[in-house]
Amino acid sequence: MNYLDMNLEMLLESERQLLYEYEQHREQNLKIDMTRGKPCVEQLDLSENMLKVISCNEDCFTDYGFDCRNYGLVDGLDYAKQIFSGIIGVPWQQIIVGGNSSLNLMYDAVARCMLYGVYGGNGPWVKADKVKFICPVPGYDRHFAICESLGIEMVNVPLLSDGPDMDAVEELIKDEAVKGMWCVPKYSNPTGTTYSDAVIKRIAAMRPASKDFRIFWDNAYAVHDIYDDGDVLMDLLPECEKNGNENLPYIFTSTSKITYPGSGVSALGASRANIDHIKSIMQKQTIGHDKMNMLRHVKYFKTADGIREYMKKHAAILRPKFEACQRILSEKLDGTGIAEWTSPKGGYFISLNVYPGCARNTVALAKEAGVVLTEAGATFPYHKDPNDTNIRIAPSFPKVEELEKGIEVLCASAKLASVRKLIEEKK
Amino acid sequence: MNYLDMNLEMLLESERQLLYEYEQHREQNLKIDMTRGKPCVEQLDLSENMLKVISCNEDCFTDYGFDCRNYGLVDGLDYAKQIFSGIIGVPWQQIIVGGNSSLNLMYDAVARCMLYGVYGGNGPWVKADKVKFICPVPGYDRHFAICESLGIEMVNVPLLSDGPDMDAVEELIKDEAVKGMWCVPKYSNPTGTTYSDAVIKRIAAMRPASKDFRIFWDNAYAVHDIYDDGDVLMDLLPECEKNGNENLPYIFTSTSKITYPGSGVSALGASRANIDHIKSIMQKQTIGHDKMNMLRHVKYFKTADGIREYMKKHAAILRPKFEACQRILSEKLDGTGIAEWTSPKGGYFISLNVYPGCARNTVALAKEAGVVLTEAGATFPYHKDPNDTNIRIAPSFPKVEELEKGIEVLCASAKLASVRKLIEEKK
Repeated sequence: MNYLDMNLEMLLESERQLLYEYEQHREQNLKIDMTRGKPCVEQLDLSENMLKVISCNEDCFTDYGFDCRNYGLVDGLDYAKQIFSGIIGVPWQQIIVGGNSSLNLMYDAVARCMLYGVYGGNGPWVKADKVKFICPVPGYDRHFAICESLGIEMVNVPLLSDGPDMDAVEELIKDEAVKGMWCVPKYSNPTGTTYSDAVIKRIAAMRPASKDFRIFWDNAYAVHDIYDDGDVLMDLLPECEKNGNENLPYIFTSTSKITYPGSGVSALGASRANIDHIKSIMQKQTIGHDKMNMLRHVKYFKTADGIREYMKKHAAILRPKFEACQRILSEKLDGTGIAEWTSPKGGYFISLNVYPGCARNTVALAKEAGVVLTEAGATFPYHKDPNDTNIRIAPSFPKVEELEKGIEVLCASAKLASVRKLIEEKK
Repeated sequence: MNYLDMNLEMLLESERQLLYEYEQHREQNLKIDMTRGKPCVEQLDLSENMLKVISCNEDCFTDYGFDCRNYGLVDGLDYAKQIFSGIIGVPWQQIIVGGNSSLNLMYDAVARCMLYGVYGGNGPWVKADKVKFICPVPGYDRHFAICESLGIEMVNVPLLSDGPDMDAVEELIKDEAVKGMWCVPKYSNPTGTTYSDAVIKRIAAMRPASKDFRIFWDNAYAVHDIYDDGDVLMDLLPECEKNGNENLPYIFTSTSKITYPGSGVSALGASRANIDHIKSIMQKQTIGHDKMNMLRHVKYFKTADGIREYMKKHAAILRPKFEACQRILSEKLDGTGIAEWTSPKGGYFISLNVYPGCARNTVALAKEAGVVLTEAGATFPYHKDPNDTNIRIAPSFPKVEELEKGIEVLCASAKLASVRKLIEEKK
């Protein structure tokens, strides 16, 4: 039943069967949205008690009497920094607490490089002839969109099972124009890959040609295990320090997928020099981010361990969804030869690679059958998946039954698209 | 008792008396902070019930069932747009609702011009040889700090009693490098000036040489009257439309001084083309601002009129403070010939002009006596008050009794500094 071993006649027969199966799905008039890594309502409902921790004037003060309603503290509440410190492994004094969007914090960090340059660097990047970023692929579309928007040229590097292909990275950073690298080091979007200690040590020891080089370390899924034996990520900053590379990383995280995607709190950690440099510019930009919402999070979670404990509730909701995906993917695609997929222990995504040249058609077929997936190509810079093979599955939002339907449709679509491609190739 | 009419002997005698008076103040070991336009605790307490409007999961949805906790709506809630529409006179469809800092919204707007340019303009401003902004003075230090930070050259224009000196403005905009102008059109910071209809009509009819030109219209005090017969500001956008100039203004406001300075909601209104252009870039920058906080404001105020009614409570707290300032300024400085000050019907500031060359010394003397004022020079670009004359008084934060003390110290300091200057000039 491996499509790759079939002759033309067998493939044509398979196509007839698969088309029949696909049409059955299509007739159900499904309407399932699996486009984005959106928490589901049950997950959002978990944080209900956070809505109650500030409900009168007296609640608006920190323990040491600071009024969170008023101006002040451009870099956020110390208590919030302390919680984030326990999550991203950066001393709390070197953390800036942001608003509800870590994407915004990342965009601002890149825009700041463009307009002002980095600490100890060669000045504003807008003055450079060319700026390039290393992008492990497949990766996060919104990282790539920031680069594209700001005219930063993206260079693909394969994301291997233990992290970015460091041989390729070490070659690329010899180029002065290469000034940055995107990383989602734990449960990477979309593959779920967690960087190994060995890879992190190599990253921390990099010797980029450009003094401007920064690692944009988006630790979005730091505490987002769906199993008790989740992946363990080595802290980057201490490793960088060992190599005299403490100014290399900007480290980001947020509570978007802990409390509320639209109303969480984000954080940026880095070396003291980087943070001082960023703060000096940030002071012109804003009066500081929403301290009431920081205080809400602080009162609700108290510590990083409070968050870790709480994440088990998310895991209990997400685990059946991830497992349903794995089960159906195995049932429908094992042994077909036309697909492989990841089985992450956390994060928000499963990455499916279909037969080369078939991702776009697969997603289009699924859409026609009422199942909307992330656009094919989205996981690559410029929306160009060179092999047209990668599809991102976001299992969190739909209910389990919907999800099962959705993955069935996806599998049927993948098989139909692949068989058609094989037929084309055989003809 | 007019110091300007005194001979040297009289001045020396006055100095002795004034020094004695000043020392009396100094011995009280005061500690009064009048540096910033910060609402006082009683004002912040007014919004207590807003803390209660979202206290359970069911509260997190808009009337039409949108879940404000999750991702979505990069430009904010329609309901929030509708409220802001009633405040800044821009159709709600042409409003973007921002986060807790309108300063951030303004910084981003300028930074966006630098990196991308404006709708219908000549491309990124960073590519231009020089960018200049017109700055009516005295003005808001944080506007000037944005320009300074981004390397935009500031050109002073006098703020007259009815708005910026438009003869000067119309001359300056013949220069292609002049690409922007800051305005606080109602209860301007620090003078409390409200632009007249005639000035607004001239602004709306401007023909700047540069296609890039934008008016940064910071309507921060739109509803901040302290008397029932507050100033009435003409809406700028409709006037611009009449002149085919609808793409000229970016209009900003916020609830920082309505609900919470650290946790309000901001808004940006402009022409449809401007808003579409900004949104297309903003989509790369953020997942959108905090919709839960928008919803909190919407549920609490419901309409723009709801806000207007509510502002009477702020007025009741601020009015006695402004009146205390006026009373003491009159008592202590009337007829001295060395000071004049504004008497605004709203906003957050009173502007005091002391004898030329004496602002810095006045502020220093007051500080030595325990009364901290906004740094002299802060109301001018590059912190350079060419006449060293302007002092910003921020009456909102201290209690009335403190404020009275503070203004007495300020007056004593102003007189001492002025008399010393006059003695110097006479010698």
